Amino acid sequence: MAATGASVRLMGAIEERLRELEVELPAPLAARDQGFNYVLVNVAGSIAYLAGHGPQDGGQPTPLMTGRIGDDLSAEEGYRAARLVGLAMLASLKQELGELDRVSRWLRAVGYINAAHDFTGHALVLNGFSDLIVEIWGDAGYHTRAAPGAATLPFNVPVIVEATVQLG
Amino acid sequence: MAATGASVRLMGAIEERLRELEVELPAPLAARDQGFNYVLVNVAGSIAYLAGHGPQDGGQPTPLMTGRIGDDLSAEEGYRAARLVGLAMLASLKQELGELDRVSRWLRAVGYINAAHDFTGHALVLNGFSDLIVEIWGDAGYHTRAAPGAATLPFNVPVIVEATVQLG
Amino acid sequence: MAATGASVRLMGAIEERLRELEVELPAPLAARDQGFNYVLVNVAGSIAYLAGHGPQDGGQPTPLMTGRIGDDLSAEEGYRAARLVGLAMLASLKQELGELDRVSRWLRAVGYINAAHDFTGHALVLNGFSDLIVEIWGDAGYHTRAAPGAATLPFNVPVIVEATVQLG
Repeated sequence: MAATGASVRLMGAIEERLRELEVELPAPLAARDQGFNYVLVNVAGSIAYLAGHGPQDGGQPTPLMTGRIGDDLSAEEGYRAARLVGLAMLASLKQELGELDRVSRWLRAVGYINAAHDFTGHALVLNGFSDLIVEIWGDAGYHTRAAPGAATLPFNVPVIVEATVQLG
Repeated sequence: MAATGASVRLMGAIEERLRELEVELPAPLAARDQGFNYVLVNVAGSIAYLAGHGPQDGGQPTPLMTGRIGDDLSAEEGYRAARLVGLAMLASLKQELGELDRVSRWLRAVGYINAAHDFTGHALVLNGFSDLIVEIWGDAGYHTRAAPGAATLPFNVPVIVEATVQLG
Repeated sequence: MAATGASVRLMGAIEERLRELEVELPAPLAARDQGFNYVLVNVAGSIAYLAGHGPQDGGQPTPLMTGRIGDDLSAEEGYRAARLVGLAMLASLKQELGELDRVSRWLRAVGYINAAHDFTGHALVLNGFSDLIVEIWGDAGYHTRAAPGAATLPFNVPVIVEATVQLG
């Protein structure tokens, strides 16, 4: 029936968009299963909280990129790292929610930038994350954000993002 | 009628308070209109998320203050910068909500302090923001806060604050 | 009656757990009473926001631990500091809510780690906080988290955690 068809299309809109953009998600990380004392996604009502994610693939033992931006990495490499962070988050959301279409809106994100002492291009780096989310979710992807410089980051990854999304 | 009159007075209470305190807001920034991939305020139900704001005036091409506190700037200058951050946030809220009176309570704020290696006066700096909010909103302005030191900040601003408020 | 008995046991479950674990809380801090312009806990509906807490005891004039992890302190000392942060938070929650049992779930935490330039063990440090919360709340204690390195922290404490919890 028409209504069901529309509903099916709607339910799969984000997955469809990922295919259009030829975006491939990494293997999900599995914080809790690996004996950690925290979770990657926590749902409370219509809000899902996302843990800080680095540029990681759950199938790899080490981060996909490491280094300090402005010292070891260029701003462009930082941008790529931030995009990889977004992909890792999507893998976590998909694992937790089953369907990425359950994410109706992105609300806020904080991107911690592992930056050299004189670096000021934090916004350019975090664009790697924000561009990805807006490419996929369109208007619903626009989030508030902050991009503070971190002195150091776990495992020396170049960027970590934590975020909050709305479920619809 | 009395009830309507009371309601009108209530609706304008914050705007009235700004006049009493002779607080002038800067021009609002316009992240999305300028082609950015994020927003300055995101409303979800009765919560509004505020992006990280620096000491900025939307009518100026560069931040109103730059520098690292403890190296380039004193703690007192940091305090003034944090107050300017608060004013920039109010401009964003007014632009997004129309009326600042729609903000019924301040919930939380994180102030990232661009601080020299041996600086420990983060609380004094963030007071520039917290004092402003409490002066205007009174009891409803009391927020939770954290004031971590950032190694660096975008455009070398001395302080960035991101916050969450309740709409009433 | 059985239902009442179950309810009574449920209401005191967290307090009971603290006794089992022989966990003693420090004296609560009192930000607002001491003339500060912020609060340690802010409740909005079923959510409570927690201010950034350091390893502090409200009965002591100075933090229980200070120093930069990797320079002045080992990762193990950082772990102990993060546990003390958790205890300070519990004291704040108990002061604000009356009963820790009102906290039904931990949602998210951000731990700012005062770390040396080449430190990468942030996760180990923040485990001091996460382990404590999960020991006490069990499944309901699993939270999302991020552990960015801070260049500096207020009063040179080794770690600050800010968090969000759900009230039930």
